[in-house]
Amino acid sequence: MGTIAATTTDITAVAVTDTRVEFAWQAAQNRAAGNVFRLPNFFASEPHMQPASRRDVLKQSLMLSAAAAALPASGLSAAPAETDKPRLGTNNVILFQGDSITDAGRDRRRGEPNDARALGRGYPLMLAGAFLADYPELDLKVYNRGISGNKVPDLDARWEPDCVELKPDVLSILIGINDLWHKLNGRYDGTVESYQSGYRALLERTSKALPKTRIVICEPFVLRTGAVNDKWFPEFEQRRAVAEKLAGEFKLAYVPFQSMFDDAVKSAPPSYWAGDGVHPTVAGHALMAKTWRDVVGL
Amino acid sequence: MGTIAATTTDITAVAVTDTRVEFAWQAAQNRAAGNVFRLPNFFASEPHMQPASRRDVLKQSLMLSAAAAALPASGLSAAPAETDKPRLGTNNVILFQGDSITDAGRDRRRGEPNDARALGRGYPLMLAGAFLADYPELDLKVYNRGISGNKVPDLDARWEPDCVELKPDVLSILIGINDLWHKLNGRYDGTVESYQSGYRALLERTSKALPKTRIVICEPFVLRTGAVNDKWFPEFEQRRAVAEKLAGEFKLAYVPFQSMFDDAVKSAPPSYWAGDGVHPTVAGHALMAKTWRDVVGL
Repeated sequence: MGTIAATTTDITAVAVTDTRVEFAWQAAQNRAAGNVFRLPNFFASEPHMQPASRRDVLKQSLMLSAAAAALPASGLSAAPAETDKPRLGTNNVILFQGDSITDAGRDRRRGEPNDARALGRGYPLMLAGAFLADYPELDLKVYNRGISGNKVPDLDARWEPDCVELKPDVLSILIGINDLWHKLNGRYDGTVESYQSGYRALLERTSKALPKTRIVICEPFVLRTGAVNDKWFPEFEQRRAVAEKLAGEFKLAYVPFQSMFDDAVKSAPPSYWAGDGVHPTVAGHALMAKTWRDVVGL
Repeated sequence: MGTIAATTTDITAVAVTDTRVEFAWQAAQNRAAGNVFRLPNFFASEPHMQPASRRDVLKQSLMLSAAAAALPASGLSAAPAETDKPRLGTNNVILFQGDSITDAGRDRRRGEPNDARALGRGYPLMLAGAFLADYPELDLKVYNRGISGNKVPDLDARWEPDCVELKPDVLSILIGINDLWHKLNGRYDGTVESYQSGYRALLERTSKALPKTRIVICEPFVLRTGAVNDKWFPEFEQRRAVAEKLAGEFKLAYVPFQSMFDDAVKSAPPSYWAGDGVHPTVAGHALMAKTWRDVVGL
């Protein structure tokens, strides 16, 4: 049929014909290598026109998270998921939650949806632009409620006004960097275990309060440059695995940002994507937005 | 071959087989109507992989501007252009110039390329993200030098430091709204003729100083809401036509933002795209970025 039909056919064909899950970043590697696998494109979602294809992409993203919980990152194998959640609808609310990476310089005094200053300069702004430009007839409301320095307990403390009361239809969470960073610099004493139990409790609470909300777990990531040194490892990897495991447990879409950046540093140095190893550059945010959309399929 | 090959084939097929120019916004209308014509996608350029297709898109954008100079906006007819300029290369500099629409809240104390705060929150940031994420191996430098309130004479006054000295490989200009707006509120006495002669002189000066620079003329636009009332017409239309005519005279790529927004208001009210009729919302900026990329083919 056209753009999306062609791309989603490419990528879902892998899942269906091989009964194997082709991760987004693997598709990107294939693309870089000149192979035929293609990702759906950032600014090109047209769910109202290719319902079957869009469903396939969403189904695949659900498969990704389920598979990720149980299997190593290479050579995944999974049956197609049964769940087939609805796509974006009229007046849907999309909420981005997290720390400074999500905050991205937003003006926190401004709380209205779809407002450029309230959305910051990072991947939430870029994704908001993509959604709002692509679905003008849906009257979507996009919020950014990321706050610099936040850890899981900080999200928990402000979850009622900053998440539950906003009644999001789609909720994207990226949290975990400060949980380790603040520990490394002596300002916090959380462990991998408390990160996991706290994050799990937050997801349980959210699922109960907002049973129809589609939750997207974003993989915490670091790049080996700037503030990120050997002290971060292996604990960072353990915490990253917690996010992946929880996405699998709750059967949530999972956006593999660490794998994406691991792949991206083959094309440009880590500082090109995140100057201090933690906060993405414009290039890094745009790549995140693109991958988020590719994986979540909205 | 995949995403881009499919889309560019769709769109260039129109130009080649019909020897007619299919404008980007017409393709968008076709898409909205469920027809098969497709636009190349915002975040999906892969020029190193499909050189022939990318050249076709660029050729088409050049055809657009040449045709636009000579013909009415509907039912265009033009022979394929001979010019086939190079695509982006290593260390290329991309510069966005204009008024508040381009400025979009950038921090003017920051002058470095690729810096989020220096790029603002509008279409230059979104395009910078797209370029930097898609071409990490090229080490591109993207600048925003739009300044709120600027008219053609203001660009002329600061053109040496803010354009010539930056040696852009790609220069995008969006100027003309304040040239009329400030006249309507009694702060300026420029005419359509002085807008044309001033803009032409600026382009002549630029072509001499930067003969290899690819210049992109963006169509000035307004939406019928907020600050935009009947007093703006027909003079706004005359000024818009000047920009289009100059793009044709100089054989420059021309991004038809007015036509794009005229089409967009069929899907959502004018205020959805630009609250005051002049300054785009997040949705408006994202649509501009998408259309810019579609038309210019980078």
